[in-house]
Amino acid sequence: MRHSIKLSLLRFASALVVLAGVLSAAIASRTQTSASIRGFLPSRVEAERDLERKLQGTPDPARAEAALRRLTAEPHMAGTEASRRVAEWLRDQYRSFGFDAEIVTYSVWLPLPREVKLELVAPEEKALGSREQPVAGDRDSSDPRAVVGFNSYSPSADVTAPVVYVNYGTVQDYNDLESLGVSVAGKIALVRYGRGYRGVKSKLAEEHKAAGLLIYSDPQDDGYVAGDTYPRGPWRPLSAIQRGSVLYTQIYPGDPLTPGVAATPAARRIAPADAASLPRIPTVPINAQDASVILAALGGGRVPRGWQGGLPVTYHIGEGSTQLHLKLAMDYQQRPIYDVIAKLHGMSDNEWVILGNHHDAWVFGAADPGSGTSAMLEAARALGVLARSGWKPRRTIVICHWDAEEPGLLGSTEWVEANRAALQEKAVAYINTDVGVTGPNFSASATPSLNELVRDVTSDVKDPSSGRSVFDVWRDRLTRPQIEERIPGSEAGSDAPIEVPLGALGAGSDFCPFYDHAGIPALDVSFTGDYGVYHSLYDDFYWMKHFGDPSFAYHAALARVLGTLALRLDEADILPFNYPEYAVEIKRASDDLAARASIARMQGQGARIVGDASDEFAAAAARAARALGSLSPGALDSEKESQINRDLVGVEQALLAPQGLAGRSWYEHTIFAPGSYAGYAAEILPGVSESLDANDAATFAQESDSLAAALHRAAARLDDVARLASPSAPSAANLPPRPSGVLGVLPRF
Amino acid sequence: MRHSIKLSLLRFASALVVLAGVLSAAIASRTQTSASIRGFLPSRVEAERDLERKLQGTPDPARAEAALRRLTAEPHMAGTEASRRVAEWLRDQYRSFGFDAEIVTYSVWLPLPREVKLELVAPEEKALGSREQPVAGDRDSSDPRAVVGFNSYSPSADVTAPVVYVNYGTVQDYNDLESLGVSVAGKIALVRYGRGYRGVKSKLAEEHKAAGLLIYSDPQDDGYVAGDTYPRGPWRPLSAIQRGSVLYTQIYPGDPLTPGVAATPAARRIAPADAASLPRIPTVPINAQDASVILAALGGGRVPRGWQGGLPVTYHIGEGSTQLHLKLAMDYQQRPIYDVIAKLHGMSDNEWVILGNHHDAWVFGAADPGSGTSAMLEAARALGVLARSGWKPRRTIVICHWDAEEPGLLGSTEWVEANRAALQEKAVAYINTDVGVTGPNFSASATPSLNELVRDVTSDVKDPSSGRSVFDVWRDRLTRPQIEERIPGSEAGSDAPIEVPLGALGAGSDFCPFYDHAGIPALDVSFTGDYGVYHSLYDDFYWMKHFGDPSFAYHAALARVLGTLALRLDEADILPFNYPEYAVEIKRASDDLAARASIARMQGQGARIVGDASDEFAAAAARAARALGSLSPGALDSEKESQINRDLVGVEQALLAPQGLAGRSWYEHTIFAPGSYAGYAAEILPGVSESLDANDAATFAQESDSLAAALHRAAARLDDVARLASPSAPSAANLPPRPSGVLGVLPRF
Repeated sequence: MRHSIKLSLLRFASALVVLAGVLSAAIASRTQTSASIRGFLPSRVEAERDLERKLQGTPDPARAEAALRRLTAEPHMAGTEASRRVAEWLRDQYRSFGFDAEIVTYSVWLPLPREVKLELVAPEEKALGSREQPVAGDRDSSDPRAVVGFNSYSPSADVTAPVVYVNYGTVQDYNDLESLGVSVAGKIALVRYGRGYRGVKSKLAEEHKAAGLLIYSDPQDDGYVAGDTYPRGPWRPLSAIQRGSVLYTQIYPGDPLTPGVAATPAARRIAPADAASLPRIPTVPINAQDASVILAALGGGRVPRGWQGGLPVTYHIGEGSTQLHLKLAMDYQQRPIYDVIAKLHGMSDNEWVILGNHHDAWVFGAADPGSGTSAMLEAARALGVLARSGWKPRRTIVICHWDAEEPGLLGSTEWVEANRAALQEKAVAYINTDVGVTGPNFSASATPSLNELVRDVTSDVKDPSSGRSVFDVWRDRLTRPQIEERIPGSEAGSDAPIEVPLGALGAGSDFCPFYDHAGIPALDVSFTGDYGVYHSLYDDFYWMKHFGDPSFAYHAALARVLGTLALRLDEADILPFNYPEYAVEIKRASDDLAARASIARMQGQGARIVGDASDEFAAAAARAARALGSLSPGALDSEKESQINRDLVGVEQALLAPQGLAGRSWYEHTIFAPGSYAGYAAEILPGVSESLDANDAATFAQESDSLAAALHRAAARLDDVARLASPSAPSAANLPPRPSGVLGVLPRF
Repeated sequence: MRHSIKLSLLRFASALVVLAGVLSAAIASRTQTSASIRGFLPSRVEAERDLERKLQGTPDPARAEAALRRLTAEPHMAGTEASRRVAEWLRDQYRSFGFDAEIVTYSVWLPLPREVKLELVAPEEKALGSREQPVAGDRDSSDPRAVVGFNSYSPSADVTAPVVYVNYGTVQDYNDLESLGVSVAGKIALVRYGRGYRGVKSKLAEEHKAAGLLIYSDPQDDGYVAGDTYPRGPWRPLSAIQRGSVLYTQIYPGDPLTPGVAATPAARRIAPADAASLPRIPTVPINAQDASVILAALGGGRVPRGWQGGLPVTYHIGEGSTQLHLKLAMDYQQRPIYDVIAKLHGMSDNEWVILGNHHDAWVFGAADPGSGTSAMLEAARALGVLARSGWKPRRTIVICHWDAEEPGLLGSTEWVEANRAALQEKAVAYINTDVGVTGPNFSASATPSLNELVRDVTSDVKDPSSGRSVFDVWRDRLTRPQIEERIPGSEAGSDAPIEVPLGALGAGSDFCPFYDHAGIPALDVSFTGDYGVYHSLYDDFYWMKHFGDPSFAYHAALARVLGTLALRLDEADILPFNYPEYAVEIKRASDDLAARASIARMQGQGARIVGDASDEFAAAAARAARALGSLSPGALDSEKESQINRDLVGVEQALLAPQGLAGRSWYEHTIFAPGSYAGYAAEILPGVSESLDANDAATFAQESDSLAAALHRAAARLDDVARLASPSAPSAANLPPRPSGVLGVLPRF
């Protein structure tokens, strides 16, 4: 799955302004990191530098290319034998690197398409459902094993109904349609991909009582309007189809019949009719060619401003005379899925640094997920080389390759549900990559406490094209637009350094169960570029070799980023979490919330108690940072250090609400969740924010209490940190003090 | 020709703000006009109202439709026998209305196309130059007499060269192209229609040493992106070609071999090689279909942001491998053209109120110019009916139907050049219409002193759809966007009335020689709508009957507007010119100029002397208005009244510079001219503004002096008015005082 999460310009601008003040000191010091590393005692910096140098010397573009060729050798969709073959190959690779690797199997309720048929029946009969065309030079593109275009978890159906075009099928689009006096009830809605998760499009079509949904790829969004199409360029050709799931992962991801528990053979399963994550209306993806035929046949009024796309027709709403016949036979079964779990055991097995990506693909999946998998293999191989040279990780490194991410994060969700207690006790962080490489532009999302780690690590990895650091190239790219589009309210001409903002974690890849359900700090990294073949036949090796990363240099760079992130988290004395930055994010959101609540005239004290709790969290974060910043060498014994680290990790878990969010209890994180009507993009303070949007005062009050309680719990854990780190804290008795010193770059902890 | 002149939003907004203050009083009073009419003595108001009522009762949609059917009976391009037949029919119509009508002939240098051939020769051979396709139901669309797509006044040529795409082919586009390191020298430039006169595109291509120019119609601009295409809707279908002239009318319009003098048989002619208005590079218009083939074949880099149009390909610049062969054989000849001049003689033949439109068309010309012609015929018939019932106009009404407007304003220009002295002595104003009706939206441009007359007259004509006044509907349409897009700097929420701004007169229709060359106050009116078939085969009767004005009610409304404008100017005691409004326009432009000169660091005193002269003009305009506003009944004898009217008309002539504008001496008006690099749109203070843009200090100084001198002369004539109208002015002896009284709506003169 994995859809890049974009910061809106406004959000981006606002984040820049806020962060500029808080973090300007950090930038100046980032350039002189060789002397210190955040979270490391001075005495251990040199050893860590040496380890990282060695690790970074290993990843090899040629090996990454060979791995990708193997991974894309055949279509390997979840639920097929080919997916099992990829899992077995991966397991064997890890074993050859010296990891302890196994395959973990779950049994999930998973459909495959048996028949997809679409035809125009009025004003004239015409067969639709055209397939993706073979492309000269790319032999994979004529592989007969490629699955037809379908949306996973659509129900079966056989409907004939008129068509109505609803732009992107968002909440706003349905509002606009209603104001035109047009309803989709009993009709087939035709919408284009973009501006949200396709499962939200399906849910909204269901809520508006549509008889069916067609989702097509408009050339304005990722086709010829965006740029040259495959095979001339990297963008979507007219026949390409974006497959993808419509499972309502915004309610809960994973196996729809085992919400909250692992899909083991013995698990208790609900009936499909009771599964809230299963869509109720038939949904099929179509290519731009078919959409063009339908759009040209539509009557009725002209579409509103902004609804016209890039196809060479005048877009209309449709007035009823254009009828389609849609027949969809889905083969729902309990099917096995295969997660690969590989461990490089550390000195302690009680702390886990986890990395992961999925291995299943809609067809060949060169970018999605092969590029990330190939990079992760090179990172793992590099860790294996270190281990063979005598190094033993301080913490255990766990690398996971998930099955069935594409249909709705099944492999990761089931594993997290199976291991939630252990994860909450042991996991330090989860590092995700997915569509790892589609171009040269570094991109990252993270829990805010890990933003600084990503900035630090990318400062120490070279960008293959420029020879500068990945961080420097990334910063220049993200802050350059600022020169042209001045941020209103910012001081024009100011030379104050601007910190590079990271995205928020929404949904769209396997960090979701870790972060949103189990409260494990998470981050997600990739190198991005022009990528129009998402979820199509053409996301194959030839595409990657000609457009995404012809030299595979960025695969190797991603391996270095992943490996260095793992090493930092694995080896740190004090885990490098930055809670003041998290507090800034929360404070900004709670200020927004107060303003919106005031405009909405939402009664009650919700916004105030959230504001107070945010302030308390910020104060506790500052106290903890100060205490850690003034630690002197030798002040900590290892038990105290362990306890501090456990508290630092535990802040994120403290932000979970045990009862979950209103209406979707699987989602427990009170600060971030995928938006109920966005699907991929993160909603910040989701419970209060969405109940405010819905003008639901009772839920708003309840979610405010829940959020404030979570912030209080989190503040308490930070105060634990402050107490443990302060000189007066009683030292843990009977344990020899670890060799220690001033923690690296102290004021910035 | 006639291309609507659009106000940019900024200009529009700025005009609104400026005018709001100056004219807010006018609006309140416009609603109560029945008691008074601007420029009329109270004693004559009732008679004028009666005349106007009668006039407005005559125009008949059925007759307008019948006239249009006759006017569009065959293709009637200038230079053909069919154009003469239309002229003769028009002459006979006027004679039947009781006018004194004749045909005036000139002999002009005019090309017709003999052969137009275009083919792709690389990367593959393919014939281009596709014709306009017949449309079911519209039998005119299969008329074999329709001329091929060609650009009048292109030279003949036979070239084979690579193609480069240059967006709209504007100054900015060539700058962008240069910054990409690409040149059109020796190549064929492919540009799209829009953002300026096609003759400017040709001139710029020539200046950049292109070997040829193709101009195509992009669906984004007037095709399927804009709306449904003909015959489903009013927009341009893929095969439609926009014909049109590329004569450099921005240098001088009219017969290229007789600049400044009438093209009589005896006139002295320059050699074509010496005619500065003749384009030097071959230029051909093509349809979107052909453009699509060429664009799809182009290599090279992607186009800059904003250059991608609406065709279903990714647009490229072109890198040399795409070659075209263009063969163009033009048949240049001295050819006769036929102007129709019809007069309804007044009590005095010493003052002329002139109305005009052209009669030649590229093919059938239903909208352009037939709709305006048909409306003007109904206005003329209504005046004829009044005359037969015993009324005799106070001034002579002259109605003109020009030939050869399309190739470059030939008929009107030659007639103005032939009659310049008489016009400058007698003409009160020139009222133009051209593409008279393409929809229900009233639109007008005028010399600023006549803006108020247009507002007044449209307040007294009913909009056929709503039953409200044309003015009210027009005002609501133009001021409604303001609600959504607030004007920066204006007081939001203010209920101050906003005056309706008119466009400035640029070029693009036959008012140009009257206004820009002879200094005759002019205005231009029409009802506009969605109109994508401009200059194509499809601008025919069927189009008008289905889209432009199916009931012909707006043809009748336009006839009422034209007739009422004529009556007001014909019958007024004191001509209703409003110079304070003109002064506001000039002052705003001179302030802009000062700001731009300061930014450009233009040396010298140019901007200051222009500013001072603008202030002087404004002060004189205010004095004249005050003096006229305090006239008491009986204060004027008829000679003084005549002298005041002569002065009021003469202000516009005083704004001419005898030596003309730098580099284009035919254009004498110092306040408005078509932009040298815009072509249709008006440049205000053109001499100083363009020399400032060109950073030419010497010309700037010279043009500043010339402009300031013109403003001084104009101020002197206004001071004459003030002197004549003031109570102490000596009355003209020996003439009986005319019956007189307080002039209508005095403070608003």
